[in-house]
Amino acid sequence: MLSMDHNFIQEKLRVFAQERNWDQFHSPKNLAMALAGEAGELLEIFQWLTEDESKKENIKAKDKQLAAEELADIQLYLLRIADKLDINLEEATFAKLEKNAEKYPISLAKDNAIKYNRRDER
Amino acid sequence: MLSMDHNFIQEKLRVFAQERNWDQFHSPKNLAMALAGEAGELLEIFQWLTEDESKKENIKAKDKQLAAEELADIQLYLLRIADKLDINLEEATFAKLEKNAEKYPISLAKDNAIKYNRRDER
Amino acid sequence: MLSMDHNFIQEKLRVFAQERNWDQFHSPKNLAMALAGEAGELLEIFQWLTEDESKKENIKAKDKQLAAEELADIQLYLLRIADKLDINLEEATFAKLEKNAEKYPISLAKDNAIKYNRRDER
Amino acid sequence: MLSMDHNFIQEKLRVFAQERNWDQFHSPKNLAMALAGEAGELLEIFQWLTEDESKKENIKAKDKQLAAEELADIQLYLLRIADKLDINLEEATFAKLEKNAEKYPISLAKDNAIKYNRRDER
Repeated sequence: MLSMDHNFIQEKLRVFAQERNWDQFHSPKNLAMALAGEAGELLEIFQWLTEDESKKENIKAKDKQLAAEELADIQLYLLRIADKLDINLEEATFAKLEKNAEKYPISLAKDNAIKYNRRDER
Repeated sequence: MLSMDHNFIQEKLRVFAQERNWDQFHSPKNLAMALAGEAGELLEIFQWLTEDESKKENIKAKDKQLAAEELADIQLYLLRIADKLDINLEEATFAKLEKNAEKYPISLAKDNAIKYNRRDER
Repeated sequence: MLSMDHNFIQEKLRVFAQERNWDQFHSPKNLAMALAGEAGELLEIFQWLTEDESKKENIKAKDKQLAAEELADIQLYLLRIADKLDINLEEATFAKLEKNAEKYPISLAKDNAIKYNRRDER
Repeated sequence: MLSMDHNFIQEKLRVFAQERNWDQFHSPKNLAMALAGEAGELLEIFQWLTEDESKKENIKAKDKQLAAEELADIQLYLLRIADKLDINLEEATFAKLEKNAEKYPISLAKDNAIKYNRRDER
């Protein structure tokens, strides 16, 4: 199965933090820093690889394993921040999917990935 | 329901990218950059707030809404990278939960959040 | 003396890269990733510290030393990117100082650090 | 001239912050977040460009100008954090240059940019 039970993981993370008395550290501000730190570690895996070397058919097993761990770290912090801020991450994700479809209509976005607010530049 | 259907969202993202001919841009390397860029936007919401101001009982509605959007952006890039690298994000997340329990045993981690590899510092 | 000789360091970095045949890796894109990775490491030093604990009168010697190294890493990548893009970093820095003074006039910015483009929010 | 007077800029930044009563926001922790946010904006310029498109001979004038502004933002935060932590950024930078020469001897680093602590991987 490929659906992730947010409630279950968030409860796990709550218990994990309580057992270690870590709620004192887990302000949304600090969790956002931790998430960005993990995103930085993800970058470090890819920074000297070419785009082609980063693709699944070419990436080294060790780099793929490291990437999986960083993605997981980011997922855990995402769920933790959402929990701490009372944000329904699933709902927010679906809302963003719809918003992206509006910001990037096929007619304007085809073949280019220019950010919607820079579209008028020559 | 609070579980997120990864397959469903990843399929949505696949179609979204194909319709815009964006697969050319979506190497894991580039997607990691995009994710880190969104993590940077998340930071910008919190950077001048105190920890207390970042908490759910104090955060301004507008900042919470912005945070929800950035979390969603990060979630979407997470799922997209996992898809592009053939990584099962749910499996990786559960594996990381277990690894964290080993790296941070309650006896050593209680009341401090020192990174496991810096624990021997005075 | 407290002024930094950009030419001298950039020449050092050029030789360093040439001796290792690293120019192949040093596209501005890749260097931007490397810089952001170092910024992530800087975050990791501070993420679980309170703001007060991060201040010079309170920070642990080890954390200050780590911070100095990360700042240096970032400085080196800054100079390297500027070199690779033919950007005069000193000129750009002074131009930004002036731009900031325009974007944040004292009358509007006193006592708050709201980003200039969010100033009209209630 | 291509050397940057750190004292002069740091004094400018001190006055800038004092006039706006911004010292309350400028803990090293918060400044590290702000710097990482700017590093994220730098990434956004390059994320969908190929490495070749990011190079000085190919980059669009508008993207180069944006990059110059982000590099400047990062430089300003670097100097501000260094000032707030009583770190001599020039000294730290030269110390790092020497450390890098030790970590990446030509014999081991020629033609590859593998991080020194991953060198033993097959």
